[in-house]
Amino acid sequence: MLSAAITVQRVQAVALTDDGVTLLDQSVLPGVVRSIVVATVPDMIRAIQDMIVRGAPAIGIAGAYGVVLSARSHIQQGVTDVSTLKQAVLADADRLATARPTAVNLQWAIDRLKQALVSAEVTDTEALLAFITQEATAIYEEDLAMCHAIGKHGAALVPKGAKILTHCNAGALATAGYGTALGVVRAAFEADPTVTVYADETRPRLQGAKLTTWELSQEGIPVTLIADNMSAWLMKQGQVDLVIVGADRIARNGDTANKIGTYLLALAAKAHNIPFYVAAPSSTIDFSLETGAGIPIETRESTELSHVNGDWICPSEGVDFYNPAFDVTPAELITAIITEKGIHRSPFLFA
Amino acid sequence: MLSAAITVQRVQAVALTDDGVTLLDQSVLPGVVRSIVVATVPDMIRAIQDMIVRGAPAIGIAGAYGVVLSARSHIQQGVTDVSTLKQAVLADADRLATARPTAVNLQWAIDRLKQALVSAEVTDTEALLAFITQEATAIYEEDLAMCHAIGKHGAALVPKGAKILTHCNAGALATAGYGTALGVVRAAFEADPTVTVYADETRPRLQGAKLTTWELSQEGIPVTLIADNMSAWLMKQGQVDLVIVGADRIARNGDTANKIGTYLLALAAKAHNIPFYVAAPSSTIDFSLETGAGIPIETRESTELSHVNGDWICPSEGVDFYNPAFDVTPAELITAIITEKGIHRSPFLFA
Repeated sequence: MLSAAITVQRVQAVALTDDGVTLLDQSVLPGVVRSIVVATVPDMIRAIQDMIVRGAPAIGIAGAYGVVLSARSHIQQGVTDVSTLKQAVLADADRLATARPTAVNLQWAIDRLKQALVSAEVTDTEALLAFITQEATAIYEEDLAMCHAIGKHGAALVPKGAKILTHCNAGALATAGYGTALGVVRAAFEADPTVTVYADETRPRLQGAKLTTWELSQEGIPVTLIADNMSAWLMKQGQVDLVIVGADRIARNGDTANKIGTYLLALAAKAHNIPFYVAAPSSTIDFSLETGAGIPIETRESTELSHVNGDWICPSEGVDFYNPAFDVTPAELITAIITEKGIHRSPFLFA
Repeated sequence: MLSAAITVQRVQAVALTDDGVTLLDQSVLPGVVRSIVVATVPDMIRAIQDMIVRGAPAIGIAGAYGVVLSARSHIQQGVTDVSTLKQAVLADADRLATARPTAVNLQWAIDRLKQALVSAEVTDTEALLAFITQEATAIYEEDLAMCHAIGKHGAALVPKGAKILTHCNAGALATAGYGTALGVVRAAFEADPTVTVYADETRPRLQGAKLTTWELSQEGIPVTLIADNMSAWLMKQGQVDLVIVGADRIARNGDTANKIGTYLLALAAKAHNIPFYVAAPSSTIDFSLETGAGIPIETRESTELSHVNGDWICPSEGVDFYNPAFDVTPAELITAIITEKGIHRSPFLFA
């Protein structure tokens, strides 16, 4: 198992405290830097759906902590019987698991907590709470360790002075800390400060413009913002040495669901013979899926397209919208998948 | 020559009146529908640079009308000698020609007006003004006729019930009326009301979200808005039968400069074996250029990327920007180029 002894984080998306779960509110960054405290399961579900917390690994951690909140709440409400508590928390866990459909990490983390719940051989509710809190905290700590391992493995793929293009935010904000795709960027930059980053703005939620630029600029890593539609032209100018993105779910053959636009970016990279890397913890691999065809793709509300910062950017009537939040990049467009275990190259046969 | 007898337009981007040139202000559509009247050359240059008027053919017309404004101004200011007037107007024409660098139509229209100016055999300034007004108006009327001809030719390429994806705005707003790419859409829709359109929002200026959706919804043509990064995923779902875009400059080999993102879209179409069409008047062809390598690409100010509707969408410091306004799509990605003269197929050898 990976060590969980990690350095202090500058950006922390999710933290479990005595009062609840503290979430850095990613729906208002970078204009406002504020945290909110979530203390109940319904509030955690809403925070996940409203993308106060987002990014597949961070959602998994938030879900696991949501199970802890469930146990705390039921104990506070007077549940004293272990079996009753288990049943109540299992029901809450199932609700948490469906907060968002595409990222598999949420389901994976909840399943792990459910297994801990069921297997816990304890005689009182406080011991049960302690047991699942330990399991949830382990998910957090392991994710942090995995990000560092991903960064270390991935940095070996980054040439000196590389110009790296990334999409959405697969950074500290999307994980326990350090990041997956941005973990590779951080590790590469630590070794070679001439590395620079291009960030796709990532419409419609603008995670690239709002989160990736903010996160990288906090640490002095040079970042240039582009609109999503500029990537191919940038590549044509010889300005991109590699592309690296995160993942929300990876099928056994390597097909990868990630933020909408990833597939288009992979096509552009292929056309320019530029390496296209996916960085994700192994918990992102869905071993139940042979290919990406079975990955459910979340469609989100049209206001994400029709409004920016609360203002209309299109006519208020007479227009339809199509707003898929993710797409699936076929394995043949992916040069390598970087997990905490190492670098996996095509053909991918995760088992 | 094409006939200029055309039906009434619903949307008119540029109109010459006794007071000056009336421009439908495309920088505030669709939230505000207002016109502004431009009466001087510096104001016309600013209107072109600020994209009050945009779209290669419309810019050409606006430039030609700008030359008329120049003649009017100098006459008003007391110039009575024909030769003096010619010199003054020629100098203004050269200033107008450089308002924006990428679209060739502006240069083409100004060159045509300069030639008219030089060749005009008139004995008084009013006659000179009348002569160049006639030439400028001819450019407008010919553009309108060319759009209808482009629409007619292009409609033959649109299958029954086609789902058409377009980028930016190559519509009535970008031309004398009717449009180039949207001229084809209009002509196809007139023949077959089951045709539907997907509009790329077209960051950073959002011409697709703000202008194309507005223009099409005015006429009841069904339009669905997507973010630019969704095109490939939409194609993968079998939701796109063809792509059609306008052009700002076409080299003799068919390489086409158009709004940034066009090249990426063409790569996506190629990867899905979807026809990719360019629709433009023949005045868009730059016969001085063998290939697209010589086309100057305008880079615009970073606020277009950092702000939407006046609000920041990224950190206010620590971020760099790259904002090319156009890209060049290589001829090999273009299935056909539709001009008023007909359908030109690869290999393109414009001469």
